[in-house]
Amino acid sequence: MPNQYQYVKVFAPASVANVSCGFDVMGLALDHPGDEVVARRTEEPGIQITRVTGENGVLPTSVSENTAGVAVRALLGHLGSDVGIELEVHKKMPLGSGLGSSAASSVGAVVAVNRLLGLPCTSDELLTFAAEGERVACGTPHLDNVAPSLFGGFVFIRSREPQDVIGLDCSKPLFATVVHPQIEIRTEDTRKILRRNIPLQKAVTQWGNIGGLVAGLLKGDYELISRSMQDVIIEPIRSVLIPSFAEVKEAALDAGALGSGISGSGPSIFALSRDNETATAVGKVMQHEYEEIGLDNEVYISPINKEGPRILEEVQL
Amino acid sequence: MPNQYQYVKVFAPASVANVSCGFDVMGLALDHPGDEVVARRTEEPGIQITRVTGENGVLPTSVSENTAGVAVRALLGHLGSDVGIELEVHKKMPLGSGLGSSAASSVGAVVAVNRLLGLPCTSDELLTFAAEGERVACGTPHLDNVAPSLFGGFVFIRSREPQDVIGLDCSKPLFATVVHPQIEIRTEDTRKILRRNIPLQKAVTQWGNIGGLVAGLLKGDYELISRSMQDVIIEPIRSVLIPSFAEVKEAALDAGALGSGISGSGPSIFALSRDNETATAVGKVMQHEYEEIGLDNEVYISPINKEGPRILEEVQL
Repeated sequence: MPNQYQYVKVFAPASVANVSCGFDVMGLALDHPGDEVVARRTEEPGIQITRVTGENGVLPTSVSENTAGVAVRALLGHLGSDVGIELEVHKKMPLGSGLGSSAASSVGAVVAVNRLLGLPCTSDELLTFAAEGERVACGTPHLDNVAPSLFGGFVFIRSREPQDVIGLDCSKPLFATVVHPQIEIRTEDTRKILRRNIPLQKAVTQWGNIGGLVAGLLKGDYELISRSMQDVIIEPIRSVLIPSFAEVKEAALDAGALGSGISGSGPSIFALSRDNETATAVGKVMQHEYEEIGLDNEVYISPINKEGPRILEEVQL
Repeated sequence: MPNQYQYVKVFAPASVANVSCGFDVMGLALDHPGDEVVARRTEEPGIQITRVTGENGVLPTSVSENTAGVAVRALLGHLGSDVGIELEVHKKMPLGSGLGSSAASSVGAVVAVNRLLGLPCTSDELLTFAAEGERVACGTPHLDNVAPSLFGGFVFIRSREPQDVIGLDCSKPLFATVVHPQIEIRTEDTRKILRRNIPLQKAVTQWGNIGGLVAGLLKGDYELISRSMQDVIIEPIRSVLIPSFAEVKEAALDAGALGSGISGSGPSIFALSRDNETATAVGKVMQHEYEEIGLDNEVYISPINKEGPRILEEVQL
């Protein structure tokens, strides 16, 4: 029987959804940044969010409006439990940046509470609960941020309904660079501008690249990964919302990145590289493009997180 | 320096293009049936097709109208050679069946001639020449039959232009069953009925399945292969041209097949199974469906061909 805990503090990683060609079906986890979530048992039954720090306190503490609260409520509902739980959410990454901020909070919360209660739920169940957090954050229970944040590594979402998530282990090292220009884009808006219909010919090009990227990762073939990181459907439309997108991407590729694209629905732009040195050089040139036009920005350089969330502290019951 | 030959006879395998969800990007080779092509040096420069046997002699012997002739002409054109070559094409599989008949002839021809001449061309070059044969057969230089016929196994076509073909080695055995109802469908017609635009939502479902199938093959995961063999774009449209398609497919799945769908553009229907016994049982029930409605048919049961074409006979120069 696994231990139960009085107090658990969890780190859950940021994630890059879509990964160029994999709209709605692919995502990867970063080692950092990420959110921290504390779960604590209380006498009084039910869920309370007692603190939300970071991001200027703009996030709600109402359980039904906060992604972490919604996700934990789904978990307790599944268990039929009225255990008393206090949550603290410490945002350590920007909101609305395209780095899976809401997903990290949901994932951190369900992992912390599941551990608190002695691991009653499977990871597949946790994924479902975390996805409920996404539903409140962006209208749809998308898995392409919660799944990588929860499982680590590259994940492929074959199907959301029924939930079918596949890990894509890459035998070769990969490092991510993400530049976040300090503008806000609402995920909702980035969905609205997409076309409902697409040309079959472009869809075929896209699924060629998706299969290529999956094969490239599983075979550890950098060149194939690089050739496959092309999005002919979503990027041409969404990139118009991101200042200097073409210039930043081109600079990243020129500096040696294997590929580059929009992180999730943006505005962050990510790149993948073979090693930390290249990822760092790529970060410099991407940042340079934004400095040229005087746009505040932040750069993250991180290996791919392979383990998912980490337990930072815990106190046994 | 490789040997040169006076005479080479090659077997080139049939193939199943698309493999359910992989429209235009995936194909697999069968161990049998297949075509046989003979190439022989002659004194007189240029290409002649001296014999075409099988399929009631309906195929042209004119070099510019026969896929084998067109493919060999592309090869010699590339070499700038006016060597004299006589071809015989022995059709051992039905035309217009969806089994890559034209591709097998083109592939057999370029492999035979390349060997005759001491292997001057790479396999990637041979692929391009064989694709020229497809252009004359169906209007477009599709690779999803010529690539598996030439390389063997499962192949993934990331891109046709530029040509980027990836082998997908599956560590687990797979057996194909193909039933060919004796009706003729022109590939051209099967293309015409496709919609030029498709809903983005369906495209996402499709690329989920494509990535799943690629991962399932590379991981040797039968269950994932099975879950991924679903085509929501092409099959619902093309299957209306194939009598009893739904019944035949359902019978195959009920008999234990991992998946089933249209072979290429039809009318043949294929299924994949874990072992020869299941593939044989699947063949029986598929055939039974056509016997019920009194439609003549032929059934093929074959392991996946992993080697591509085979040299059957040769005489050194």
